[in-house]
Amino acid sequence: MLTRDATTTLTEQLAERYAERIRARLLAPGARLPSVRDCAQRHGVSPHTVVAAYDQLLAQGLIEARRQRGFFVRAAAPPAAPARPAHTATGGESRPIAPVDATALIRSMFHHPGARASPGLGTLPPEWLDLPLLGSALRRVIQGERLAGHALHYGDPAGDGRLRAALSHRLADLGIAAGPAQIVTTLGATQALDIVSRTLLAPGDAVLVDEPGWAVEFARLAQLGMRVLPVPRGADGPDLDVMRRLIEAHRPRLYVTVSVLHNPTGSTLSLAQAHRVLTLAQAHDFHVVEDDTYAWLAPLNAPRLSTLDGLQRSIYISGFSKILTPGWRVGFIAAPPTLVQRLVDVKLLSSLTTPALTEQAVAVCLEQGALRRHAERVAARLGTARVRSIDLAQQHGCTLATPPQGLFAWVDTGVDTDRLALALLDDGWLIAPGSLFHATRRPSMLMRINVATSQDVAFWRALAHRRAELQRRGPRS
Amino acid sequence: MLTRDATTTLTEQLAERYAERIRARLLAPGARLPSVRDCAQRHGVSPHTVVAAYDQLLAQGLIEARRQRGFFVRAAAPPAAPARPAHTATGGESRPIAPVDATALIRSMFHHPGARASPGLGTLPPEWLDLPLLGSALRRVIQGERLAGHALHYGDPAGDGRLRAALSHRLADLGIAAGPAQIVTTLGATQALDIVSRTLLAPGDAVLVDEPGWAVEFARLAQLGMRVLPVPRGADGPDLDVMRRLIEAHRPRLYVTVSVLHNPTGSTLSLAQAHRVLTLAQAHDFHVVEDDTYAWLAPLNAPRLSTLDGLQRSIYISGFSKILTPGWRVGFIAAPPTLVQRLVDVKLLSSLTTPALTEQAVAVCLEQGALRRHAERVAARLGTARVRSIDLAQQHGCTLATPPQGLFAWVDTGVDTDRLALALLDDGWLIAPGSLFHATRRPSMLMRINVATSQDVAFWRALAHRRAELQRRGPRS
Repeated sequence: MLTRDATTTLTEQLAERYAERIRARLLAPGARLPSVRDCAQRHGVSPHTVVAAYDQLLAQGLIEARRQRGFFVRAAAPPAAPARPAHTATGGESRPIAPVDATALIRSMFHHPGARASPGLGTLPPEWLDLPLLGSALRRVIQGERLAGHALHYGDPAGDGRLRAALSHRLADLGIAAGPAQIVTTLGATQALDIVSRTLLAPGDAVLVDEPGWAVEFARLAQLGMRVLPVPRGADGPDLDVMRRLIEAHRPRLYVTVSVLHNPTGSTLSLAQAHRVLTLAQAHDFHVVEDDTYAWLAPLNAPRLSTLDGLQRSIYISGFSKILTPGWRVGFIAAPPTLVQRLVDVKLLSSLTTPALTEQAVAVCLEQGALRRHAERVAARLGTARVRSIDLAQQHGCTLATPPQGLFAWVDTGVDTDRLALALLDDGWLIAPGSLFHATRRPSMLMRINVATSQDVAFWRALAHRRAELQRRGPRS
Repeated sequence: MLTRDATTTLTEQLAERYAERIRARLLAPGARLPSVRDCAQRHGVSPHTVVAAYDQLLAQGLIEARRQRGFFVRAAAPPAAPARPAHTATGGESRPIAPVDATALIRSMFHHPGARASPGLGTLPPEWLDLPLLGSALRRVIQGERLAGHALHYGDPAGDGRLRAALSHRLADLGIAAGPAQIVTTLGATQALDIVSRTLLAPGDAVLVDEPGWAVEFARLAQLGMRVLPVPRGADGPDLDVMRRLIEAHRPRLYVTVSVLHNPTGSTLSLAQAHRVLTLAQAHDFHVVEDDTYAWLAPLNAPRLSTLDGLQRSIYISGFSKILTPGWRVGFIAAPPTLVQRLVDVKLLSSLTTPALTEQAVAVCLEQGALRRHAERVAARLGTARVRSIDLAQQHGCTLATPPQGLFAWVDTGVDTDRLALALLDDGWLIAPGSLFHATRRPSMLMRINVATSQDVAFWRALAHRRAELQRRGPRS
């Protein structure tokens, strides 16, 4: 990918490539750069060019040389200050966690190193979304009086009334009885999780999370000063033995889980496990936050904790980024009646209100059944894509860690996926290595693929090639 | 305002009126209800009706009777959990602060007890805003490719590039040199303050604030577990002797201030005070957050801390709710280059991105000079309104605590404005009593008025009438 006919020298191109990855934290602070020989080989340049490029990075303060050991990414500015050094606790011990690292994955969602589809992405490809639907919904809500209604006022702190009414109907379809007064709209599911954490937790509180799981949630909890307690997630739900031990040792206040189409494994909680989780929550007096981000890709009757519990001690969170529009940032919380006012108060403190403009446009899509029909088309298309992606994965020597459902497959590559990710970046492919889904960064041979963006055989060929290269080179290079 | 021809009884109407105020926390937990005799007199009903209404409120669990002392609003559900009991610290002592109370003011922004203009509001009246401008800007950015650009992607975590470029030009007009790379967009100035606090502070840190000041900022800091250190705000800036003592005793990390057109006093920092504040920040190594929410109502050359400091240790925050549209929730941070990445990380954790749709529409308004022209018209209109409102205030026996500028005047009524506010609510007028602008609720004879919404002589007559009533009744009723 380095070019000899560019206006910049090969040295500058190579230095800039690494500088960009360091700034985007695709190379985390403390990560080791390839040896000069490996780097020269990988990029087809002379060792002299690599030394000159590393020199530029040293001069820019981005990397440091450690005697006899090589070149390492320098620690960045101190991360957002947590209450105390953030920890994850497992059984009795606790291990340090670096909150700054965990934003690497979401950064990668905005940082497309080429024009190719990225198998590591967490969303549907833009061309799968229904742009005419979005345009017509927007045009309807910016006419005359309606525009005045949502532009000239702060709006209802709980969120737009029309959207909350439509969401109440949608939740009824999922078997969750929640009136509009139980619903609080948010800036995407992300702000929903943030508001719930800030409402129910104080720094130092313990929180159960699924592991592997969504790294941004771990990072948020750590940044707020919480103790993160990872519970191993199996094909039918969390490991309840571990959960029980953690409950007794740490008395958690909350369990945050993606019960349906779990990220990254794609698995869904069984009904029996759902019942047991709720029984534990009842017995030990903690709340369960059900993050149903992938709701529209799952069957209506998927076993949701909030359906079983009737929003007694469960809090339901979802949004529209994974099915309708990531850019409008529309999400919501459905909560037990006694919690609603406290959630609204924290929403007021964190952003006052959320824009009624986009909330009303989403309501239009919901009311007319257009979103439901779109979701059905997407689910069918995803089914076809999944078959092809899985075939390709298996043909290229990968195995599946869990039976794939929804948007993701959790794939075993047989090599360290941190190293594989770095090598594939040189080919223009972005993957999501397994280490990013752990509360503490650890080596993993797994990766999460998006079945909608992993259908290009060129990707799988590149992966097989890079894997073979890593296997030849051995465990440390 | 109670009606005898309604379908509900007088008792039910009276009970519902108080229930509504308690739910909206216009009557705070612990507040005393009027005596039965006073209440009967005020509403023109029999004491029997009042007793029956209070009985209903008792049955609903909204109030409690205390022997020999009367009826009091019951403490609500526990407030959003702070790190520890939140405190404000003054000199050596610290006083408890109730974070839940401080949302009362912003609630009142959404709770209009009648159709009349509300002198207590913090925004321009909707009819002063430029609806055609907003509509045409929106229509421009939802066409074809543009819609795809902001609807189908999460967008740039730092915020829409077009808006950041336009903001960079706007800041240059204020004498603040900040490239687009130093700007992070947010969901209104409120999220900007939230993100800055979470980035720079850890629970337990001390923060200097102006007092009187914006209660929502006190509440947010308390909710995040910070120690709030109020510094008395005079006509030309903070009391530097108090500030120095607090700095030595508490080593604050941050000073959050509205330097220009301060809320609620309307005062603006003098150049000399600005210089001294920055010298203190330098000497004691804290950051200064300049909340320039009312920027568009002030002269370009108003003495801004960020202009003097050149964004070295100052962080500039502003938004468009007070001049263009409260509903779109567009705000931003301009920060020292070394802080930008950390701010973006916290933004990612709290809401991922912000909607580029509304950000681009605001950019259109900025680029074409339309917003500047609109702001000039508003400033002129506000000048006329200010003269009339101040005249009316003085004619009705009020005096001015500081020379009024911008949207607000800080008015001395001669009676406890908490009691006055409650009485005026019965007439359908919402005022902002002085107690709401203190870090700890305390009685105050001051109130903040919005000069744009205080031009109705009927309001001032009602105020004079209620004041006379309170003066007759004496200090405790």
